[in-house]
Amino acid sequence: MESESRIEAVLEQIVTKATAAPCPVHLAEAIRYAVFPGGGRVRPGLCLAVAKACGDREPALADAAAVAVELLHCASLVQDDLPCFDDAPLRRGQPSLHMRFGEAIAILVGDALIVMAFGAVSAHVHEGEQAAACAQILRTLAEAAGAPAGIAAGQAWESEPSVDVVAYHHAKTAALFEAAAVAGAIAGGGKPEGWRQAGVSLGAAYQIADDLADALGESGTLGKPIHQDGNKARPSVVASLGVDGAIKQLDQWLGQAKQSIPECSGRGNVEEFLNSAAARLCPPALRQKDFTTESTENAEGAE
Amino acid sequence: MESESRIEAVLEQIVTKATAAPCPVHLAEAIRYAVFPGGGRVRPGLCLAVAKACGDREPALADAAAVAVELLHCASLVQDDLPCFDDAPLRRGQPSLHMRFGEAIAILVGDALIVMAFGAVSAHVHEGEQAAACAQILRTLAEAAGAPAGIAAGQAWESEPSVDVVAYHHAKTAALFEAAAVAGAIAGGGKPEGWRQAGVSLGAAYQIADDLADALGESGTLGKPIHQDGNKARPSVVASLGVDGAIKQLDQWLGQAKQSIPECSGRGNVEEFLNSAAARLCPPALRQKDFTTESTENAEGAE
Repeated sequence: MESESRIEAVLEQIVTKATAAPCPVHLAEAIRYAVFPGGGRVRPGLCLAVAKACGDREPALADAAAVAVELLHCASLVQDDLPCFDDAPLRRGQPSLHMRFGEAIAILVGDALIVMAFGAVSAHVHEGEQAAACAQILRTLAEAAGAPAGIAAGQAWESEPSVDVVAYHHAKTAALFEAAAVAGAIAGGGKPEGWRQAGVSLGAAYQIADDLADALGESGTLGKPIHQDGNKARPSVVASLGVDGAIKQLDQWLGQAKQSIPECSGRGNVEEFLNSAAARLCPPALRQKDFTTESTENAEGAE
Repeated sequence: MESESRIEAVLEQIVTKATAAPCPVHLAEAIRYAVFPGGGRVRPGLCLAVAKACGDREPALADAAAVAVELLHCASLVQDDLPCFDDAPLRRGQPSLHMRFGEAIAILVGDALIVMAFGAVSAHVHEGEQAAACAQILRTLAEAAGAPAGIAAGQAWESEPSVDVVAYHHAKTAALFEAAAVAGAIAGGGKPEGWRQAGVSLGAAYQIADDLADALGESGTLGKPIHQDGNKARPSVVASLGVDGAIKQLDQWLGQAKQSIPECSGRGNVEEFLNSAAARLCPPALRQKDFTTESTENAEGAE
């Protein structure tokens, strides 16, 4: 698909620039390892789908925003796997980054990816109308990535003795989906507010899919150790509602994401994107299974 | 001094915003702990001194740039102290951040501070001429913080089996001083290229001061464990040139910083700033001492 090749091409450009001389060799290898091969690239896919639906007014800015969102996501995955977080030896079936390159390099890759995200969008700030769009996107990314309500805050909730579950799930997962939709709308020339809820709803569905994958996935198939949430007693929709209840809620969020799409000429394309994201999130086999007894069925939604 | 109060006031605003509800309590406390009380605030001081010398055309943008530089510096200190880097229990005489709040929170504080730095400057991107200045500052910050040649790269050199000493020292210390000077010039309405070398030279002097402090400092006075460079066999100017040779080179860099100041009405003020930075870097007592035998004299330059 055209969007997928746009995303990979711009990621390649940015990674090539960040890993050029005089970058230390191990850091350069590790940055590339964190970004390629990717998972579903669903966040940048959402960003570009929304940008196109809005008219794709600034395609290069939309690409930069999409790639920035993916880089922030990659940074969060590297950190999530660290010993002081999930202590995960595998990611997508491969050694997690710190297992391959060590903890110090993993932490620095996280920094570098965050900086690359802001650098990618900043490269498009010029005078005039585009500057205002860039600024809005940069502020959207900062909100989604940092404190008080972005990814850093989401991960920090896991260190709190008592957790605000709504704030935790929004910050850890939905905030970046929200940013992807909002940034896509801004770059595409649309009204960002109309798209915000579609991003939040898809993000909420992904959070549930992640809980399902954690509760049910087979480590060998899913490519990461399961039961992290259970082991660390993190809030999980599966733990509170059961598997069937979680699937029901996941479907509600997906439905809400579709209903939230503003009226526009590209509405059908965004619906199509959401349908394909939904198929990845909760494969048909999972819906047909009886989860009143424990199961090892695999949900492939999470990365 | 006016600059100092400007820096503290803007830091307070940005920290207050980042730690507001719904920020998790420990993350909020830890972000504040990382930023206050500060060290010498020499990097933001340089940024504002240069901005003033250039005419201080956009004081709010200069403040944002100065504070962004300081936030990136604070992030690097939190990371430097982590067990997989220097494993330092103390920073400025207090428990280092991970000793107080744990490793996970320390890593997330690093992320949040980096995001806050870019967010602070992005908040000033508006249409027109200021947008171009903002964009230049954002790109300057990204270069100084990330890969291939910013702080992340500088710290990553410590994981390499063989080190490019020039690239290492520039990336780890001088790059952020360079960014401070360049960003100050841009915000102040001056020509950034003319100020670049002054920043690089002051940064190189600080790197030597840090090596001196590491070799000579008393842990109790300096507030951090000494001999980190020696323990980890990092390149050190003191190890290669001896203490007297290092002081001589430090003075050369300070002299070069002063010579590099472009002709402008505010030249005297920047010289005054560099003189006070120099006094902090290498106190007179250190210059008068005989270092042909081992000494525990304290150099207070490093943070």
